[in-house]
Amino acid sequence: MTAVANGVNVQALLDAREVLKGAPEAAQFTWRASSSWRNGVHSTTTIQNFFGLGEEQSHKAETVFDADHPAVFAAEDNGITPIEYLLVGLTSCLTAGVASVAQNRGIQLRSVESTVEGHHDIRGILGVDSDVRNGFNDIKVSFKIDADASKEEIEALVAQSQKRSAVFDALTNPTDVTVEVV
Amino acid sequence: MTAVANGVNVQALLDAREVLKGAPEAAQFTWRASSSWRNGVHSTTTIQNFFGLGEEQSHKAETVFDADHPAVFAAEDNGITPIEYLLVGLTSCLTAGVASVAQNRGIQLRSVESTVEGHHDIRGILGVDSDVRNGFNDIKVSFKIDADASKEEIEALVAQSQKRSAVFDALTNPTDVTVEVV
Repeated sequence: MTAVANGVNVQALLDAREVLKGAPEAAQFTWRASSSWRNGVHSTTTIQNFFGLGEEQSHKAETVFDADHPAVFAAEDNGITPIEYLLVGLTSCLTAGVASVAQNRGIQLRSVESTVEGHHDIRGILGVDSDVRNGFNDIKVSFKIDADASKEEIEALVAQSQKRSAVFDALTNPTDVTVEVV
Repeated sequence: MTAVANGVNVQALLDAREVLKGAPEAAQFTWRASSSWRNGVHSTTTIQNFFGLGEEQSHKAETVFDADHPAVFAAEDNGITPIEYLLVGLTSCLTAGVASVAQNRGIQLRSVESTVEGHHDIRGILGVDSDVRNGFNDIKVSFKIDADASKEEIEALVAQSQKRSAVFDALTNPTDVTVEVV
């Protein structure tokens, strides 16, 4: 393999790819979260367990996330706004992809910084204008990468990350979401 | 107004709706996050500032989120997986909506609990099969609500929340995402 040290175990991922080619059922993951309303629009969401490789799995720690609306929405701002969590997921997914692809291509990274902006016309969620969608109008992500690589190689890293990103796909293409009351 | 106490300032939201009808430019929000790669597929993402109502705004605190891959992906599990952040956003957005709609309809909530499951075939992101998408196959959300209301009224709360949810829209409909390298 390469001599670069980005900290990604690419060999394990390549091995997993080979194994899962013959075992599609092991590739079926279920990610889970559970949420409790606190007061107003404040809720806490807990993540710890998931299913994958044919059995129950667990993160090494339980993590709890607060979500609320900011003071400008007459709320208490006990956490970030739900829609902002999508930006956390997007930028962290693309960053993980950049590191993985760099490792696979033998490119040593020194730093990877990104900023993301989601443009949102809140007339949709407030019901001011039914022609305005509820979600983001669009999202812009900007990467600044310092690495032992040419500008073209760095651009290719980001392009490949985008091509394989779970969250990029989830935001740019529709997903079926079913909501039920039990 | 109603005598219920769910903690949502519905009057402020109704007032905002009236004001924004005549001031669409004030309804243009920009949500922002900035992310730094740490090592491997671990990154930290920071959220504090955003733009809205025509000026720079700030959450009362800066929040930092760790994202990583779990041990089963040969990573260090220093935080939840990027795609799990989408589930945090979805369930917290729908919960906030339930509370807001309940307040507006005069329904006293006692508890709102939800679980969300995102089904994900990881053969997509690993490049095992190009017919498998990178993101979720589908997402199921399940609400359990205790409130001073009939089963039908509770189901209607959840339906209305879904109809006005920013994150539900962002996941069920495509958004244009542009990624650049600077």
